[in-house]
Amino acid sequence: MANPYDKAHELANELKQSEEFTKLQDLHNQVNADDVAKRMLDNFRQIQMDLQQKQSQGEQITEEEVQNAQQQFEVVQQHETISQLMEEEQRMSQLVGDLNRIITEPLEALYGVDQGEEQ
Amino acid sequence: MANPYDKAHELANELKQSEEFTKLQDLHNQVNADDVAKRMLDNFRQIQMDLQQKQSQGEQITEEEVQNAQQQFEVVQQHETISQLMEEEQRMSQLVGDLNRIITEPLEALYGVDQGEEQ
Ligand SMILES: [Ca+2]
Ligand SMILES: [Ca+2]
Repeated sequence: MANPYDKAHELANELKQSEEFTKLQDLHNQVNADDVAKRMLDNFRQIQMDLQQKQSQGEQITEEEVQNAQQQFEVVQQHETISQLMEEEQRMSQLVGDLNRIITEPLEALYGVDQGEEQ
Repeated sequence: MANPYDKAHELANELKQSEEFTKLQDLHNQVNADDVAKRMLDNFRQIQMDLQQKQSQGEQITEEEVQNAQQQFEVVQQHETISQLMEEEQRMSQLVGDLNRIITEPLEALYGVDQGEEQ
């Protein structure tokens, strides 16, 4: 009997042992051990979250707010460890996206087929 | 070397062989083979998509539109095969959600830890 749950746990373990995850974890720990870096990153994430929340509530985002976020992004990018962490986060996000696409392929196939069928 | 891609393909196969997927596929084929059922379902899905699109564009949805969608839902629910298909779609959506939670557990753990750390 197929057991996707067991396989999903195996995949989670695989992910945990991947280069992507161990690098991400290492950079994460480095940033957390560095008070200045951690404050910089927390501050930047807060700005991002505030903007995302505004956007999701349909509020207008000002030119000034966009420029401020962009500026803060450039500041945190100057920090070597934070910049590496953000790069690894993007790699991980790409990887998780790839894995999701692979896993849901059977469903895509099921629903993809009849979209082109009658229209 | 960890290879999450291989494991994801194994999980996709597992999912494809699961009772949830084979039932879903079977009901899907039954509905597609039945012109009346297919037209009913397509019509209902179109109504749902239109409403979702309106909502995502921040447009107001009228009381009448909500009532119409609710009415159409009750109509399709009367159709045994469609009703079963929708039930299986919900089961599948639950399963995929569970699998996603399992897979991203290592990441949740990584990010969960420092949320409670300093604030
Ligand atoms: Ca990198
Ligand atoms: Ca069922």
